[in-house]
Amino acid sequence: MSQFIAVDLGGTNIRVAYFPKAELPPLTQSKTPTLAPEGPDAVIERMCQAIEEQLPTDRSDLSIGIGAPGPLDPRHGMVLKAVNLPGWEMIPLKSILEQRFVCPVHVGNDANLAALGEWRFGAGQGTNDLIYLTISTGIGGGVIIDGRLLVGSWGLGAELGHMTVDPDGPICSCGRPGHLEAVASGPAIARRATARIEAGETSSLTEQLKASGSLTAVDVGDAAQAGDPMAREVIEEAAEYIGRHMADLAHAFNPEIFVIGGGVSQLGPLLFEPIERAVEANVMTLAYMMNVQIAPAALGDDAGLIGAMVLASQE
Amino acid sequence: MSQFIAVDLGGTNIRVAYFPKAELPPLTQSKTPTLAPEGPDAVIERMCQAIEEQLPTDRSDLSIGIGAPGPLDPRHGMVLKAVNLPGWEMIPLKSILEQRFVCPVHVGNDANLAALGEWRFGAGQGTNDLIYLTISTGIGGGVIIDGRLLVGSWGLGAELGHMTVDPDGPICSCGRPGHLEAVASGPAIARRATARIEAGETSSLTEQLKASGSLTAVDVGDAAQAGDPMAREVIEEAAEYIGRHMADLAHAFNPEIFVIGGGVSQLGPLLFEPIERAVEANVMTLAYMMNVQIAPAALGDDAGLIGAMVLASQE
Repeated sequence: MSQFIAVDLGGTNIRVAYFPKAELPPLTQSKTPTLAPEGPDAVIERMCQAIEEQLPTDRSDLSIGIGAPGPLDPRHGMVLKAVNLPGWEMIPLKSILEQRFVCPVHVGNDANLAALGEWRFGAGQGTNDLIYLTISTGIGGGVIIDGRLLVGSWGLGAELGHMTVDPDGPICSCGRPGHLEAVASGPAIARRATARIEAGETSSLTEQLKASGSLTAVDVGDAAQAGDPMAREVIEEAAEYIGRHMADLAHAFNPEIFVIGGGVSQLGPLLFEPIERAVEANVMTLAYMMNVQIAPAALGDDAGLIGAMVLASQE
Repeated sequence: MSQFIAVDLGGTNIRVAYFPKAELPPLTQSKTPTLAPEGPDAVIERMCQAIEEQLPTDRSDLSIGIGAPGPLDPRHGMVLKAVNLPGWEMIPLKSILEQRFVCPVHVGNDANLAALGEWRFGAGQGTNDLIYLTISTGIGGGVIIDGRLLVGSWGLGAELGHMTVDPDGPICSCGRPGHLEAVASGPAIARRATARIEAGETSSLTEQLKASGSLTAVDVGDAAQAGDPMAREVIEEAAEYIGRHMADLAHAFNPEIFVIGGGVSQLGPLLFEPIERAVEANVMTLAYMMNVQIAPAALGDDAGLIGAMVLASQE
């Protein structure tokens, strides 16, 4: 019987779990601060210690799955560059851990693994063709086609937040104009609300912006939940962009289900209802909506960790 | 040894070939006018007669592959609607032909099958991850991921020409705004040139437009080849849209090769050079361009027919 250590390496926390078999729940689980500014060597050492604390006595048939920020090369288990982890460039994570733990190590892009987790154990259970979008500080993606994770030729695929939705739109974090991430991520929502208030619109957020000097997507979401018309419009605009892009993705991938996770998805119906309207309004024919679900993610912060276990169990 | 009849059902011609094995060239091949206005029953009868003419005496291990215009449901071999074939709605092509010829029949979207043909025997031989775009009256697509054709949950995927490149752009043939097809297909190129001349720009095409009342993409391409600056700009604008969309597709699929076919691709370097510049300018990192080829299609009008044989041979 195979057993698995799963790792989710994030900019804030390193999460590690031990799965005696390819099933939920894990037997043990831990969360350690990443302390990313200390650099790759310190972070990797901290990750290895967290793994060691959960290593079973009998290590036969053990393999390790790791989710890490992209872009990374999953074939070679190499992190090419991790925006939230200072100093991480060309880090051969797979070979470092294989030498240390003398077992197979599999590395995947964190959003891709969250898609895999949601597909196998979360909102997408029982489907074959799934698109996952995580909408938070950035917008990440994952695609399952006929039960297999899309990674592409060099493992750089499924970057669904980095596709153009408005060529005249703002510059994205990646430097290119008008990507979905630039108009519909958490920071984009906060930026749009701030700009409207600074342009003179009145909103329940006006005082808050004056007092704190900045707004977050959570602030905008809270105001929208409380009925603030401007905040609602800002959320609806983001949802419209997301929904239109999902119609394009439906034409490209014709999925059975869209799973939407990440902090911004916590807005619930405020976000999902305008998304659904925008998808329906923008698909070529309603055949693309036949039996299609648009579902909130079910695994929360554990999606990537669980996906790392699924990755290791599939290899 | 398996043997195959391949059929490419187009709006203008029905092409049929007999392959004694899954290799090129076919032993026999024919082209019959579709006479689409006569309606589905007459077209299907004409197609069946063309097949019968090439049927081998020994029909053991025979299967038939058919490429037809989409949208269609490849699992059930059902043409949902074919824009160029009047009266074709919900036509169960697979079961009609299976009853008639008592052998397995496999049906695929024509652009998808052209992708399959180019991948197996054309410009994409030896690759695993391929994106095919055919740019002519419409813009069709096909995607090979890890050696498998992407069809999606209901077989409606890979409609890469029907993805938004400019939300404020013109309405597409499908009724939605700003798709690639609406700004970069042959008719879109002709429309842009016509509009510029009608707005008062001078061009070598001015007289031609006056004389004939309309322009085609071939006219614009000929003028561009002859050095007409306006015609060149129109081609470059289309190429810029195509290249930017290819960068988005690189982020989604991370392919090894883009294969570009269809009438407009005959423009050669006039089209391909600005496409290459636009792809490079719009990918997030040049990692997406590592070892990536952008190649003209190699099989010409035979791509779909050959792909129909490949489809039958894979099933």
